[in-house]
Amino acid sequence: MNDFTLILGGARSGKSRLAEARILDAPHTTAPLYIATAQAFDDEMTARIAVHRDQRAGAGWQTIEAPLALTQALEQAAPAAPVLIDCLTLWLSNHLLAGSDLPAEGARLAHAIAAHPAPLIAVANEVGLGIVPDNALARRFRDEAGRLNQQLAAQAGRVILVTAGLPLALKGSL
Amino acid sequence: MNDFTLILGGARSGKSRLAEARILDAPHTTAPLYIATAQAFDDEMTARIAVHRDQRAGAGWQTIEAPLALTQALEQAAPAAPVLIDCLTLWLSNHLLAGSDLPAEGARLAHAIAAHPAPLIAVANEVGLGIVPDNALARRFRDEAGRLNQQLAAQAGRVILVTAGLPLALKGSL
Amino acid sequence: MNDFTLILGGARSGKSRLAEARILDAPHTTAPLYIATAQAFDDEMTARIAVHRDQRAGAGWQTIEAPLALTQALEQAAPAAPVLIDCLTLWLSNHLLAGSDLPAEGARLAHAIAAHPAPLIAVANEVGLGIVPDNALARRFRDEAGRLNQQLAAQAGRVILVTAGLPLALKGSL
Repeated sequence: MNDFTLILGGARSGKSRLAEARILDAPHTTAPLYIATAQAFDDEMTARIAVHRDQRAGAGWQTIEAPLALTQALEQAAPAAPVLIDCLTLWLSNHLLAGSDLPAEGARLAHAIAAHPAPLIAVANEVGLGIVPDNALARRFRDEAGRLNQQLAAQAGRVILVTAGLPLALKGSL
Repeated sequence: MNDFTLILGGARSGKSRLAEARILDAPHTTAPLYIATAQAFDDEMTARIAVHRDQRAGAGWQTIEAPLALTQALEQAAPAAPVLIDCLTLWLSNHLLAGSDLPAEGARLAHAIAAHPAPLIAVANEVGLGIVPDNALARRFRDEAGRLNQQLAAQAGRVILVTAGLPLALKGSL
Repeated sequence: MNDFTLILGGARSGKSRLAEARILDAPHTTAPLYIATAQAFDDEMTARIAVHRDQRAGAGWQTIEAPLALTQALEQAAPAAPVLIDCLTLWLSNHLLAGSDLPAEGARLAHAIAAHPAPLIAVANEVGLGIVPDNALARRFRDEAGRLNQQLAAQAGRVILVTAGLPLALKGSL
């Protein structure tokens, strides 16, 4: 069993900041790996992603962008590198739009997470606490995101819910 | 005071699975009663509801479908039968669309829940943590669902919030 | 460091009721001040706001309506008056629609909260746990509300999340 933490939260809850701090604060001899799943759809977003990547490089991170090929990026990571995946929900959304086989993708990812020897933190959005969306694709996304969160929470040693920057342990200790 | 547990959670949070497991795991001499409030609007949904009912029958449940007549179903339940209501929020939505007197329906339900002698678990959705809906009916539904959850939480001996399949005690112990 | 509590919750979660009870239950020699940020857009809402104000007056509150000028109202409050701000999220929404400089408004408010000598409770909505809104303004509002909640939660001595009327301590004790 490796050291896998799932960090859940809403939009602008501070979940990514908590995840970054936890990776950097833990002792590590290899540069931590940041696997980013955001996809740039325009120049503004390309520029913003580059700024974030440069900031993280200054803090010692290596960054890989993997909007779809998250599992492959994780399989190829240096075994001793602590890994931060940010975030699972965007990755799921990218695969939903790409028409991928979501249960198969989820199973491969869960296996790669379990196989990574160094500490790993995955960030995910909790999106199921509003009213039922009008849009059928949004309903399907909400269901799939909830399923993936349940699957990975079952596997994680530690699950933390972040609200207004404050962590709450749902499984394991803070 | 009977043994009443309210289980809250978002879409695909694992709340129904937790509720079913808790009912089946507790000692009982009478078959547990599952009161389902989902309404089939098409053949696909009719088929899905039938599959779930057959699965539960195999696990020892009796199922009653009560999209509107939940309170009557509960009043007629065998006194020794543990009861699972899944879910209150769909029942409320059905009554909202039917133009019912919601405070009166809520009061009758609360009374029937308190009067059932055997353990009872009710599942409800938390729907108030997204942005304000554009749609006036959705706003009213959100308000009414919040009011019902508050009313029943005040009466429950135990309230559990489920996130990614993980329970958190809001009242009483897990 | 003054006594500042942030109460977070969804729509109809019971957060305002908890905040009012906490202010009234704490010992105080000066009438508590209720700073209301709701804006009446029609006669029905004007009437509803008046009813609430009269109810609070009967319970000993002084009420100030400050849809935009919340910080000024707080700066002018009697130093010994316990203060309830209800709610921050409406105030933020009013400033967003008014085209205000949100980071500057947030910083001034945070300073005025820290400077008030008597106990202060601020109520805010958690709005980031649904799916991503279609509407660009709603997305910006959601981001800004999350940022403000994080900023004030960092400053508060106590942060409470309310669900179905039930409080959960995220920071400090209940």
